[in-house]
Amino acid sequence: MTRNWEFSRRGFIAAGGVATLTGLARGQEGVGRTAPAEVGDWIQHSEMPNNREPPLPRLVESWITPVDRFYVRSHAANPEIDPAAYRLQVDGLVDRPLSLSLEQLRGDFPQVEVVATLTCAGNRRYEHSRVRKIDGVPWREGAVGNARWGGVRLSDVLAAAGARSEARHIWFDGLDRIQRSSGEVQFGASIPIGKTGDEAGSPGAIICTSMNGQPLTADHGFPVRTVVPGYIGARSVKWLGRVHVSDHESPNHYQQNDYKLLGSADPLESAEAPAILRFPINAVICVPTAGATISAAGGPLRVAGYALPPGRPGVVIDRVEVSTDGGNTWLPTRLSEQSQSMCWRLWQTAVEVPAGTAGLVVRAIASDGTVQPTAVDWNLKGYLYNAQHRVAVVPG
Amino acid sequence: MTRNWEFSRRGFIAAGGVATLTGLARGQEGVGRTAPAEVGDWIQHSEMPNNREPPLPRLVESWITPVDRFYVRSHAANPEIDPAAYRLQVDGLVDRPLSLSLEQLRGDFPQVEVVATLTCAGNRRYEHSRVRKIDGVPWREGAVGNARWGGVRLSDVLAAAGARSEARHIWFDGLDRIQRSSGEVQFGASIPIGKTGDEAGSPGAIICTSMNGQPLTADHGFPVRTVVPGYIGARSVKWLGRVHVSDHESPNHYQQNDYKLLGSADPLESAEAPAILRFPINAVICVPTAGATISAAGGPLRVAGYALPPGRPGVVIDRVEVSTDGGNTWLPTRLSEQSQSMCWRLWQTAVEVPAGTAGLVVRAIASDGTVQPTAVDWNLKGYLYNAQHRVAVVPG
Repeated sequence: MTRNWEFSRRGFIAAGGVATLTGLARGQEGVGRTAPAEVGDWIQHSEMPNNREPPLPRLVESWITPVDRFYVRSHAANPEIDPAAYRLQVDGLVDRPLSLSLEQLRGDFPQVEVVATLTCAGNRRYEHSRVRKIDGVPWREGAVGNARWGGVRLSDVLAAAGARSEARHIWFDGLDRIQRSSGEVQFGASIPIGKTGDEAGSPGAIICTSMNGQPLTADHGFPVRTVVPGYIGARSVKWLGRVHVSDHESPNHYQQNDYKLLGSADPLESAEAPAILRFPINAVICVPTAGATISAAGGPLRVAGYALPPGRPGVVIDRVEVSTDGGNTWLPTRLSEQSQSMCWRLWQTAVEVPAGTAGLVVRAIASDGTVQPTAVDWNLKGYLYNAQHRVAVVPG
Repeated sequence: MTRNWEFSRRGFIAAGGVATLTGLARGQEGVGRTAPAEVGDWIQHSEMPNNREPPLPRLVESWITPVDRFYVRSHAANPEIDPAAYRLQVDGLVDRPLSLSLEQLRGDFPQVEVVATLTCAGNRRYEHSRVRKIDGVPWREGAVGNARWGGVRLSDVLAAAGARSEARHIWFDGLDRIQRSSGEVQFGASIPIGKTGDEAGSPGAIICTSMNGQPLTADHGFPVRTVVPGYIGARSVKWLGRVHVSDHESPNHYQQNDYKLLGSADPLESAEAPAILRFPINAVICVPTAGATISAAGGPLRVAGYALPPGRPGVVIDRVEVSTDGGNTWLPTRLSEQSQSMCWRLWQTAVEVPAGTAGLVVRAIASDGTVQPTAVDWNLKGYLYNAQHRVAVVPG
């Protein structure tokens, strides 16, 4: 089947030519694309819990990711929450514990909207797992998305509750119920209190009730979730039931044991390792997808993708470069105009792919000089894989 | 003044020749040795609190560091503690809170003795500070020592107290009183509970009452301190008053704010950063000292020093190598026989120093393949400096 990929040009400057992609190889070595990626459907890793990601070409059609192309990461069935009965508990080291209805969240606090990219810490685990087998959802490169999140500033809620001076960490407890061998647990996380305020012009954490102007869907945490710009998705807790103010980190399993960079399953190593918070610089080629065949007649090949800045205030993606010779020489790409430190930047270019090419490589460079690494250390749980992304294409 | 350095040969194989050192240059560029280093006295950084380190040649005279050559790091005046009235409190998540006299500590628990190297996280800050100015005690390379520590296993005390299954971190509270702008605080730290037991044959933390077979001196924590093998000295809390069992880290200033690797003074960065626990691989040239002049007649120059393994169970110093050409070629050294994963290893060799040499460089290689790095990133507080150590010598 021959098809030309359609792109939204919003935020893009059109590349010089239209790629002539003559098909997608299936199951090619180092490729392993399955059918859903080809038909514009989800890559569905599991139904229960719901874990899915969009095919890469659709992911980069727009800077704001529509809800129906936004990856879903869940640890249990979506809890069914009656919005009329819903109350957000705010307690711990506060002078005035709160129990807030949705109406109060919408009416009693200034409403804000922030654009932020969320990405699963396990994004690209599928590639990472080729180095050495890793358990866990085998995410491709699509567990990432950029949305407009609406709600209230967490700092405003903490001020209303009268957070005390000893407050150091803010816990988020979810309302989901996760079956583990040790029993039923809820998802949870915590963030340093400093992350609740704006950082050098970048927005702090919000208590979120809408996504791209619509109420949150059940998959994305209805009715209330947190969104923590610049941090891995696991800290943006869905189905939020409680905000707890403490002088220390949340003891929740997903803060203390999971989502850490580990070399082994040694419990002491895990106890010594910090919880992952920020995500690192990253860039991925979304078009063409791995194993695409290109016309033997040559011509410019459209290459496009996303790039994530390292999630630090004031640090943005400065350049994204593509190589057709394995990383010996690098070609510039055109970047989307939107450039924020807590959001991805889209990029595209048209390149001439030489005969016999092994494929394409991309690297991102941030405004603080950080360069996406050529390789990264393997870690036990396959988190934060951000080696320069390579895509094999087949001249045909 | 001409002097030949005298060495203890315990644990050493004698090197081929005696170095002909014809003096020590003072204040030479990149050297900056002050008088105490030359006369076998302490390098005394401050009297109150007492912060001092031994001159390097004396430091490596023996594998076990005598108390009178063991660096002292204090944050306040030594507390005066009446040993008859002393009680160690053990509380928190325990079934049976304890209040233990010295007699009980000595009589009610199995007595153990472990050899472990302690090193200040700020060791080598003086060098580190040349890259960019760093506040704090300007430690040279002598804030390290290796002693026989006697006392009881922390795990035995926790078992006697009935530590509960939720226990995750063990807090240590000192009895010193430190004046800070925020008020008077005590020194404190915590370690993961997994560090209280033996790790793969390496000893876990102990509650320590003796050093090299003698009661602790006031400078080293009389009557009771902790010793945590493999961790930076700051976790081996002196003048121990309380062991507190918790599900989270100690909120003490020295665990939460200080002793972290930071790039800036941003409080959020500090809150996000983990407490430093393990010390890294390191090696230092202790003989000759920087700026020594060597005989124009040449001959073998004795070079000696210490090497620290990375503090991981089963990982020891495998090789120490010296270069006389800036790191282009490396020469082997002879290692002390004692080789333990929580202890330094001493080394020495005799090298021919070529005319016009810029000096000597050393690097350590551990049994897991870890190589001491050529350079390390600067950090705000100057911790864990372990770049390959260079010593300028002057042919004369």
